[in-house]
Amino acid sequence: MNAPIRTAPAAPLCGIIMGSQSDWPVMRHAWDILQALNVPAEKCIVSAHRTPQRLYDYATTARERGLHVIIAGAGGAAHLPGMVSSMTTLPVLGVPVESRALSGLDSLLSIVQMPAGVPVGTLAIGKAGAVNAGLLAASILVPHVEGLDARLAAWREAQTRAVAMEPEDLE
Amino acid sequence: MNAPIRTAPAAPLCGIIMGSQSDWPVMRHAWDILQALNVPAEKCIVSAHRTPQRLYDYATTARERGLHVIIAGAGGAAHLPGMVSSMTTLPVLGVPVESRALSGLDSLLSIVQMPAGVPVGTLAIGKAGAVNAGLLAASILVPHVEGLDARLAAWREAQTRAVAMEPEDLE
Amino acid sequence: MNAPIRTAPAAPLCGIIMGSQSDWPVMRHAWDILQALNVPAEKCIVSAHRTPQRLYDYATTARERGLHVIIAGAGGAAHLPGMVSSMTTLPVLGVPVESRALSGLDSLLSIVQMPAGVPVGTLAIGKAGAVNAGLLAASILVPHVEGLDARLAAWREAQTRAVAMEPEDLE
Amino acid sequence: MNAPIRTAPAAPLCGIIMGSQSDWPVMRHAWDILQALNVPAEKCIVSAHRTPQRLYDYATTARERGLHVIIAGAGGAAHLPGMVSSMTTLPVLGVPVESRALSGLDSLLSIVQMPAGVPVGTLAIGKAGAVNAGLLAASILVPHVEGLDARLAAWREAQTRAVAMEPEDLE
Amino acid sequence: MNAPIRTAPAAPLCGIIMGSQSDWPVMRHAWDILQALNVPAEKCIVSAHRTPQRLYDYATTARERGLHVIIAGAGGAAHLPGMVSSMTTLPVLGVPVESRALSGLDSLLSIVQMPAGVPVGTLAIGKAGAVNAGLLAASILVPHVEGLDARLAAWREAQTRAVAMEPEDLE
Amino acid sequence: MNAPIRTAPAAPLCGIIMGSQSDWPVMRHAWDILQALNVPAEKCIVSAHRTPQRLYDYATTARERGLHVIIAGAGGAAHLPGMVSSMTTLPVLGVPVESRALSGLDSLLSIVQMPAGVPVGTLAIGKAGAVNAGLLAASILVPHVEGLDARLAAWREAQTRAVAMEPEDLE
Amino acid sequence: MNAPIRTAPAAPLCGIIMGSQSDWPVMRHAWDILQALNVPAEKCIVSAHRTPQRLYDYATTARERGLHVIIAGAGGAAHLPGMVSSMTTLPVLGVPVESRALSGLDSLLSIVQMPAGVPVGTLAIGKAGAVNAGLLAASILVPHVEGLDARLAAWREAQTRAVAMEPEDLE
Amino acid sequence: MNAPIRTAPAAPLCGIIMGSQSDWPVMRHAWDILQALNVPAEKCIVSAHRTPQRLYDYATTARERGLHVIIAGAGGAAHLPGMVSSMTTLPVLGVPVESRALSGLDSLLSIVQMPAGVPVGTLAIGKAGAVNAGLLAASILVPHVEGLDARLAAWREAQTRAVAMEPEDLE
Repeated sequence: MNAPIRTAPAAPLCGIIMGSQSDWPVMRHAWDILQALNVPAEKCIVSAHRTPQRLYDYATTARERGLHVIIAGAGGAAHLPGMVSSMTTLPVLGVPVESRALSGLDSLLSIVQMPAGVPVGTLAIGKAGAVNAGLLAASILVPHVEGLDARLAAWREAQTRAVAMEPEDLE
Repeated sequence: MNAPIRTAPAAPLCGIIMGSQSDWPVMRHAWDILQALNVPAEKCIVSAHRTPQRLYDYATTARERGLHVIIAGAGGAAHLPGMVSSMTTLPVLGVPVESRALSGLDSLLSIVQMPAGVPVGTLAIGKAGAVNAGLLAASILVPHVEGLDARLAAWREAQTRAVAMEPEDLE
Repeated sequence: MNAPIRTAPAAPLCGIIMGSQSDWPVMRHAWDILQALNVPAEKCIVSAHRTPQRLYDYATTARERGLHVIIAGAGGAAHLPGMVSSMTTLPVLGVPVESRALSGLDSLLSIVQMPAGVPVGTLAIGKAGAVNAGLLAASILVPHVEGLDARLAAWREAQTRAVAMEPEDLE
Repeated sequence: MNAPIRTAPAAPLCGIIMGSQSDWPVMRHAWDILQALNVPAEKCIVSAHRTPQRLYDYATTARERGLHVIIAGAGGAAHLPGMVSSMTTLPVLGVPVESRALSGLDSLLSIVQMPAGVPVGTLAIGKAGAVNAGLLAASILVPHVEGLDARLAAWREAQTRAVAMEPEDLE
Repeated sequence: MNAPIRTAPAAPLCGIIMGSQSDWPVMRHAWDILQALNVPAEKCIVSAHRTPQRLYDYATTARERGLHVIIAGAGGAAHLPGMVSSMTTLPVLGVPVESRALSGLDSLLSIVQMPAGVPVGTLAIGKAGAVNAGLLAASILVPHVEGLDARLAAWREAQTRAVAMEPEDLE
Repeated sequence: MNAPIRTAPAAPLCGIIMGSQSDWPVMRHAWDILQALNVPAEKCIVSAHRTPQRLYDYATTARERGLHVIIAGAGGAAHLPGMVSSMTTLPVLGVPVESRALSGLDSLLSIVQMPAGVPVGTLAIGKAGAVNAGLLAASILVPHVEGLDARLAAWREAQTRAVAMEPEDLE
Repeated sequence: MNAPIRTAPAAPLCGIIMGSQSDWPVMRHAWDILQALNVPAEKCIVSAHRTPQRLYDYATTARERGLHVIIAGAGGAAHLPGMVSSMTTLPVLGVPVESRALSGLDSLLSIVQMPAGVPVGTLAIGKAGAVNAGLLAASILVPHVEGLDARLAAWREAQTRAVAMEPEDLE
Repeated sequence: MNAPIRTAPAAPLCGIIMGSQSDWPVMRHAWDILQALNVPAEKCIVSAHRTPQRLYDYATTARERGLHVIIAGAGGAAHLPGMVSSMTTLPVLGVPVESRALSGLDSLLSIVQMPAGVPVGTLAIGKAGAVNAGLLAASILVPHVEGLDARLAAWREAQTRAVAMEPEDLE
């Protein structure tokens, strides 16, 4: 789909954070979706384990800085999404990044199995999860971004139209 | 916490659906949270497999009926959350209900591993997931329900205060 | 084995559907088996999540269009086989396509763990499952396709004869 | 649903076999479905491991005895469905019976992961799988049993009607 | 074994923390071991998710308060041990508490699969893990507690002596 | 089957060892089979972890004491079978005892996944595995125990005869 | 180690069978060990599913043909070892061959989880399992092959001597 | 970080052992950390299965030789860490080395699921686990190595500083 024209950068409504630079090839798919849908977003590395103070600062100031939703991606014993959620009442979406030995099963369980009281809306392992985190954040932001409803619907329609009838069409 | 006084029922902003009546003992925890936070909600049985037409009707009319977020719970080969999401651009949250043989691992993977393009924000297996689906829905609805921000923050604070210092305090 | 001569294409008795073009390298093995056994078949992309309307149309018209059995392949949170089965009383066979992170375990559980009332006959993950879906569909169609019984038996016998005695014969 | 009146027992079209008497509480659900749909069936204990000769006899005479489909249930290292399929070209459906230690995951993988060439259409672990094996066998037998099409459709419709709207209706 | 006489409580060298009061029936086995070995210890509920500030305070003051080792137990998406370790250079030992749906596999992976840089020495799921956390903490404290070396060796010897020769001795 | 008359106890040919008295309810099934087949056996508790010296003594003297095969059962991180095998060239059979949290999956993998060079013939988790360890030990001892061949064949035949035809026979 | 000189081929005491030629690269390690230890062996492809008659013939004549032990390797829904064991009272050892999608976990469970009454001594997944099947077969054959005891002990000693002290020795 | 100057090699306080030379590419990360932190260490191959005598000697003399902590790495049915712990009261840390078929899940469970009484502090599978074993050993040795406290703190601070803000900084 063709991305809409953007002029001045608006204040970010969605924050995309990840535990390490190595998560970016996955998490950029969340970023790309939000760019394509013209949703103001920011991106930042916040490591629950290596930068606990940055985590604290990011989570506790998120709402006052104007964010409406946070996407957090991490792998292995992935504590970032849950810890962010423990320090804000903003909606937090979690993306399990594929880990080397256990293929992201550890990432998934570390993110999704949160105890009652501190929610993380978890998406699929890896790229599909990052794309969907972007889409889910956008769906949450529909009431807050002008025209986003239409752009999101258009994105979905384009996706539907792109499904060929014949499995051999593109081979 | 003491639930706020409710007078006239407002139009539901959150729909809670589940695949079977047997899911209610789990899913009622989402309902209870929304009631406690005074978030207008509705609840309904919608089976992806046994009532596909009801599923279609529910999903395609959800936005026009005024819903802002849908919570869907199901167990085993749990297709309800993903199928609802395929027919609406509203945010859809999924609760994997514990299954008999595989303890909800099948439910979890069937809900969370959605392909790119159709997101489901998935919570933990069972009761904790239902509670958190209610809380996450509330956090999404904060901008749309008067006073919800404060009630959600109060709920969190009450939760924090309820954590004893001594593990033997209540024994 | 040598494929029998086919002249005019007969009305398809078996429909092969899959969630995405990327499933074709796996699902073509079902197609190839049906071609080799001279079973009239059709193939089509039907995505449960991206084309829910196409799914509805395909499933609800399958019997009247003359299909006797449907083979559905999908990966990840694989809802296609179960959703098709929910909308037809034709036999539905499911092929779990190998997924990236979890190697098709998610695909398998999403397809096979259907609740009571809506059956999907599930085959193995990946290519072997697609081959066997074709063979199982053929075995179901034996009473409806002239000579298929003999061709299926011949296929099996050829398979048995092809098993060498010595493990080093072909090295 | 009310079972139709049956007068003289017809020759069985579906054979239900299981590895052990202890599988009957699960497998009887397949039997009950076929009885309810008035599909002539037989049931028998055939252990792949303890009665290999009976297995051989059952599988190799099944077609000539008039069976059109075989349902085989077993648990643990469940070899019965696959071994039956190796000795007949009839459609074979497999039901993984829940095992003690591994909850049927071993049963499921032992049945579903058949190599290319010898198919087993596998259903869910336990009771749901047995019910669905009965339904899938019935759907295969539709062209061969008078009125079965209507009875199967009626069964499905009754199932749909039985889904309440309200999760608390029956509490 | 007979616990040594303790007179005045010494300053705690080992801190035992857990995410919830419901973890105490498991974690008390770590406490009991340390009591039996006369190792000064303290116990406290610190929830990573519900009391993040208490977590921060506990971890960052642990060394200056004289602790030499921390035992942290939690279940599900268990972030407590890893988050404590991220805020102190004291040795942190983790005990995965058995979770309801996934039997502690989620707890285990959430604790043990820490990324390089922030270590948690993880013990077995449940009671055995809590016992061993106490023993491992004691072995770390041997150079710092007078006579602990001998008590620990005696505990091991008593354990060895307690192993009967005959499996039927105690029946 | 009726156990044959035994007069004077013969020197044991098979040693049954287990890591703990709590393993006896499982491991006694191996003992019972050997008793029923009149195979001279001994039983002993040998803990790899709590009595490493006893383990060393048992394994290194087994052959000279006349044992021909060793059955070792253990649960959790089950090191007994593999460690015994590392210290003898006798055949060692391993029985994974069901563990609490992980249902014996840990026991199974700890026993069966031995590196090249030190074999353990592993049986199923729990009671079935213990029964089969006894049977496999007996099959190994056939050339060394008079009449065992016939008794083993009779045991198998009795087992086959005991399989009823009708699943409802014993209900 | 240097293989002993062999002159005339002796009658095989150990049969190595496998489900498919593709299993040979794994199973040859069992063959190589037996060759190195000068144990008379034979090797053959026997597919439980594609050549059930050959399976029956092989298993039921194995003892009379002079075999003392059978090694059977297979992958996926691996029924060969268990089915052979069901038709002979010879000791049967099983080697789970690594499968594509599930890395041999399906092979392992299909082989090891045999029901009580029909034992298979199972080795590790893949090459290590094949090596160890050869070693375990040899240990079973020690009383029946002249000098094998010494050769087996020498193999073990050579293995022990081959373990370097320094991890960097061979780099 | 720049490694401090070392002059005369001090007596090792930490022993790093591993089951095989093939574990060195993983275990060297523990060695490198200890070198970087100037902690006197030794490294050695000790195979629980191939060199049980060396294991016994190493474990029983470790304390008297002056070691304060042992790091043991192994893969598959990994018995080394637990067996060392059974023969010493020194703290033992275990590193599960990634295995071929099961990606280290077998290694992890074989190491971490130790029974009550014999502890092993287990780290993550693979390289991250080896790094963290080195760090955890260092944290245990802080009271025994001059300046280690500061070096460990500096290592952590350097790690924190190395976390970029922007995910695209290094691309």
